[in-house]
Amino acid sequence: MQSTHLREHNLSLVMRAVVNATVPVSRATLARSTQLTKPTVSKLVEELITAGLVEEHAPVSQGSGRPMVPLHPAQHTVLGIGLEIAAEHISCLGIDLAGGMLSTRTEYLEVTADNVPEAVQACARLLDQVRAEAGPATLVGVCVAVPGRISPDGESVLSAPNLDWADVPLMRELQRIPALAAVPVLVQNDIRLSVLTEIARRPDESFMYVRGSTGVGGAIVLEGKVLEGVHGWAGEFGHTVVEPDGALCRCGRRGCLEAYVSYHALRERAGLRRDVLIDELVEELSRSSDRAEVIGTIGRSLGLAIANALNILDLSTVVLSGYLGPIAEEIAPFIRETVDRHALAAEVDEIVIERSDDLAAPALWGAARAAISPLLDHPGDWIARSVRA
Amino acid sequence: MQSTHLREHNLSLVMRAVVNATVPVSRATLARSTQLTKPTVSKLVEELITAGLVEEHAPVSQGSGRPMVPLHPAQHTVLGIGLEIAAEHISCLGIDLAGGMLSTRTEYLEVTADNVPEAVQACARLLDQVRAEAGPATLVGVCVAVPGRISPDGESVLSAPNLDWADVPLMRELQRIPALAAVPVLVQNDIRLSVLTEIARRPDESFMYVRGSTGVGGAIVLEGKVLEGVHGWAGEFGHTVVEPDGALCRCGRRGCLEAYVSYHALRERAGLRRDVLIDELVEELSRSSDRAEVIGTIGRSLGLAIANALNILDLSTVVLSGYLGPIAEEIAPFIRETVDRHALAAEVDEIVIERSDDLAAPALWGAARAAISPLLDHPGDWIARSVRA
Repeated sequence: MQSTHLREHNLSLVMRAVVNATVPVSRATLARSTQLTKPTVSKLVEELITAGLVEEHAPVSQGSGRPMVPLHPAQHTVLGIGLEIAAEHISCLGIDLAGGMLSTRTEYLEVTADNVPEAVQACARLLDQVRAEAGPATLVGVCVAVPGRISPDGESVLSAPNLDWADVPLMRELQRIPALAAVPVLVQNDIRLSVLTEIARRPDESFMYVRGSTGVGGAIVLEGKVLEGVHGWAGEFGHTVVEPDGALCRCGRRGCLEAYVSYHALRERAGLRRDVLIDELVEELSRSSDRAEVIGTIGRSLGLAIANALNILDLSTVVLSGYLGPIAEEIAPFIRETVDRHALAAEVDEIVIERSDDLAAPALWGAARAAISPLLDHPGDWIARSVRA
Repeated sequence: MQSTHLREHNLSLVMRAVVNATVPVSRATLARSTQLTKPTVSKLVEELITAGLVEEHAPVSQGSGRPMVPLHPAQHTVLGIGLEIAAEHISCLGIDLAGGMLSTRTEYLEVTADNVPEAVQACARLLDQVRAEAGPATLVGVCVAVPGRISPDGESVLSAPNLDWADVPLMRELQRIPALAAVPVLVQNDIRLSVLTEIARRPDESFMYVRGSTGVGGAIVLEGKVLEGVHGWAGEFGHTVVEPDGALCRCGRRGCLEAYVSYHALRERAGLRRDVLIDELVEELSRSSDRAEVIGTIGRSLGLAIANALNILDLSTVVLSGYLGPIAEEIAPFIRETVDRHALAAEVDEIVIERSDDLAAPALWGAARAAISPLLDHPGDWIARSVRA
């Protein structure tokens, strides 16, 4: 009865339980959390240890009874690499199964539509450096984060306004890199990768993730899984209409949320210099005389877009990230006022508005996690390969 | 290795494949569609036949090779009952596993906040009649459709403006009906039940379902499953804001879609008599001198709410139902104009706008289906009970 499929499913269940554990687990705690029998868990754990994916550490005394043997994801055996292509730099990060950083490198260059080959060459250099510095760990996958919309087949970047990219066949370019010839490569939107970092922090929760950056993006997370949609674009809040026939957006449409809340829109509204960086936006805003008005505009526009989305999705938690994180406490009252007025869920539950505890580079970390994720879903494939090798 | 769980899963897989088949299936076609082995399928089918859930019909010659034995869901053995409480009538429908109508009855009464006990008594009478007329089939469940928002625990109706109900503990009232003492009872929103009828017509598809009635409601369907949300309210389009600080809605908010597109709003905009019924609305509109303007208003308001929802969910199919069905072809150009302008998915795919082939009473049929659904999910429970009996 589908026994290969079942074994694979259970291997993945045990593997993920070991990787996601906040305190080291034993075979007994794994049996409880996975609802598998103890003999089944022991057999699966042996397979994972033999394959070098799980490590046993020294037994720990538990008072009375037998000492507990803690299980850990193997360190330094498996390498997942994330790359992030941003407007002014390309970064590369290698992590192991335990989520530990093995190496990271950044090159600063302005990425535009005119220098895609140079950007890909920079990716190749960074990959070689990170791989060399990561030691003998086996590379299992590479994921590239791009600030734009990716084609449903994952082959090209349809539009990345920040890079001035339109219809760039990135996958074809990446596959020319010799180091990537025999490795699974994935191209993904930067916000969909950032949210993986947030999911790791609040496993199995359902929430709306809204990230302010050059534009405004987001993702919908239902019980720990990112909602994909037909083209992989679900959660694109930026072009939600908050004011019919309102302000002109950079996309050419009118009244989009991005026309009110993005870096560009805010910079113009607050009368800031063109060369203010996103990282400096919050600080610069605090010096602007229009600060109160700008904060109110952000809050109310976001509030309306969020209220409409909450009604459609019936969610009650919103996580603000990117430049919205540091100003979350200030804009929350404006968001709350609009959300409480329009969201049905507010009638029974308080809508929770939180700030993300984003790392410095959530998309880069998310990309590295995404590079390792297929191994966690299908540890059996890895085991089969290591047996043949 | 979770073998009870697996058997249950596979029994349900086979049971649903037999029930959902549009042409009768054989054991061989079931093996292909479920990806189970032929011996496994044969064993599961035998169990379902023994339990009276599946029937073999006379073998059919297939030219060369062995004749094929067609399998059908058992008729007249299992009874699922749907009840619909509407503003001016209560209806009851009994169906069997094959989805065939065994009996149906309606009582006409005006349901209000003042006569909840009378409404429940009418439900009791209808149940008894339908049950008596349905023959010896075993009642497996009852589902009650209500045009309102249901509490997350399924116990009460938080608000049903059309019935003038607020915080009605309907489940407690229903449980006083003797016939319901030993049967699973479910209370559900009428639109969430209507959409089940649409899902049966387009299995495994993803679409947005928008239903025009006294209000405007909807549901989100992802790969054949209704998106639930935290409180079971996902897809509530009616209170999406389409015009900030716009027209006053009956809910007390401003600018809601319902303030522009509901039966009440339309009746007022088109200057129609107060006693025009929903069923007559479309015909009456065709006589109104403001028809073109009213159609334009419906289309544009709906278009904006739909475009925003499509962006968040990344869907590309919209199904219009209720009074929106008959005018779908007329309003589609207005919806399309707004959707094509604002929905990202429109850049790569044509957004499909279709009308629902709703039956006369989709919520009632959906309720009857929902009453049977737990049996299809867990046929093993039924089998265990029939063995004990």
